[in-house]
Amino acid sequence: MASFIESDSDRKAFIDRFENYLFDCDGVIWHGDQLIPGVKDVLAYLRGRGKRLFFVTNNATKSRESFKSKFDRLGIEADLDEIFGSAYATALYLKRILKFPEHKKVYVIGEKGVEDELASENIRYCGGTDPADNEFLELMDFSSVTTDKEVGAVLCGFDMHINYKKLAKAHRYLIENEDCHFILTNDDSTFPTDGSIFPGSGAISAPLRYAVAGKKTPIVVGKPNQPMLDCILDKHHLDRSKTCMIGDRLDTDILFGINGQLSTLLVLTGVVKKAEIEQADAKIIPEFVIDSLGDFAPLASA
Amino acid sequence: MASFIESDSDRKAFIDRFENYLFDCDGVIWHGDQLIPGVKDVLAYLRGRGKRLFFVTNNATKSRESFKSKFDRLGIEADLDEIFGSAYATALYLKRILKFPEHKKVYVIGEKGVEDELASENIRYCGGTDPADNEFLELMDFSSVTTDKEVGAVLCGFDMHINYKKLAKAHRYLIENEDCHFILTNDDSTFPTDGSIFPGSGAISAPLRYAVAGKKTPIVVGKPNQPMLDCILDKHHLDRSKTCMIGDRLDTDILFGINGQLSTLLVLTGVVKKAEIEQADAKIIPEFVIDSLGDFAPLASA
Repeated sequence: MASFIESDSDRKAFIDRFENYLFDCDGVIWHGDQLIPGVKDVLAYLRGRGKRLFFVTNNATKSRESFKSKFDRLGIEADLDEIFGSAYATALYLKRILKFPEHKKVYVIGEKGVEDELASENIRYCGGTDPADNEFLELMDFSSVTTDKEVGAVLCGFDMHINYKKLAKAHRYLIENEDCHFILTNDDSTFPTDGSIFPGSGAISAPLRYAVAGKKTPIVVGKPNQPMLDCILDKHHLDRSKTCMIGDRLDTDILFGINGQLSTLLVLTGVVKKAEIEQADAKIIPEFVIDSLGDFAPLASA
Repeated sequence: MASFIESDSDRKAFIDRFENYLFDCDGVIWHGDQLIPGVKDVLAYLRGRGKRLFFVTNNATKSRESFKSKFDRLGIEADLDEIFGSAYATALYLKRILKFPEHKKVYVIGEKGVEDELASENIRYCGGTDPADNEFLELMDFSSVTTDKEVGAVLCGFDMHINYKKLAKAHRYLIENEDCHFILTNDDSTFPTDGSIFPGSGAISAPLRYAVAGKKTPIVVGKPNQPMLDCILDKHHLDRSKTCMIGDRLDTDILFGINGQLSTLLVLTGVVKKAEIEQADAKIIPEFVIDSLGDFAPLASA
């Protein structure tokens, strides 16, 4: 059963126990462009106590630089090295884990954030925001869908310019180029914004996953999958037993922590309500629960 | 075990047994724009014998009128009433089986052929080829993805102008409009053309299927699913025991026939090789097999 953090001693024990905190951002630190009350003080307090903080988000449209601008704008201290968006983690994964060869390139279905992070790791890429790949094809005109043997990976993230040309090219590389990797930044089916929910990165990659089913299985970097964590651990050498994942979603954040043998803290400022984790048939159970990350603030002002 | 049609008496017995023949087109009657040798004579012979012929194709981009032009161009007699493309079958399904109400409209992800067939059944539609729905959205600008309570069905076929705006609108109707139907012309993962294979209708609908998984399950009209057959039987009142489905694909055509309690004939002019159906672990077994539909030609010239 999850242990609910309510008293001063609960809060203190929780803070004393860990050296490293991984934070999901939306629903934990902010809602869109609105900071969650108290969170700024809590993060500053943790830094003051010598804790290491990491920001781990599946949002694949932003580079670390863009995330950093958001942290700056909201007045929260965050170092580039502490930010792990799924775009960056995917670039790291290609470079460090897959040892992606320099003479190959990555075909991108995604936004500029993905391209920026590939560039930061000196990985060659094509597709993405290239105007030639952001146009509609006329019905049954496949003449521009050519082969390219230099493509050694197809990387698919969130892309609001998804189109048939990109899908057909990516599909072709996946089936025709030997050992072509198939990598997704994340596979979230939807995401909430503007008071509704919209198809997410997992929906963008769904056509490719369906078309190559049985032939090729993608590697998914983002939460709840472990490549994201492998990248963080590979870069920062954290002790799992001294690390806690803090998030607002059971099926991404908390599962990510559990699968990675980290401790987990669920905050209730996002999509999950308290009743949900108290159900008898609850499958994903966080180690700790708190109403809001801001509820650690009394420690900061003590 | 499948019975291989080789001798004159095999051919004659096969023709004597059935009153109605359902033909898949590509790989059976033609390859792209090339008639398969002998087929023209065979079809004329069957008509001369008073058989009823129907052309049943998953291709969702063409209306019956467009298919008819192709038959005309290739010099094959075919009546509009004998042609069942998945676009037409889907319109029929909405009208006859679902009794789609006149005051509602269908949101289309698909090409002009789908729109034409909806119009032929006096069904209101939106989306599709409307220029307003065929543009790219800027990153995180969802302002044009508005609600529309008149949408009572999302119809998804093959669409080379697939884009995020269409996906986001369709997704919104599916989750926000009560009882909104979710209908696919077909769910083929890929199709062969120009010497390669390309993502098919099932890939185009994959983002929506993934985003609404667990909330809404689509009705798939095309082969091997049965709504396509329901439409044909509803319109022409065929006796299943006197009807044979002829096709080149096991997992669409032959399965369609088997599931519909029709007899089945596999032709080897398409994707399936003889060895495949002779394997001990073959799962979908046609009742009859012939090298080519053109091999019935000796009967025609006898």
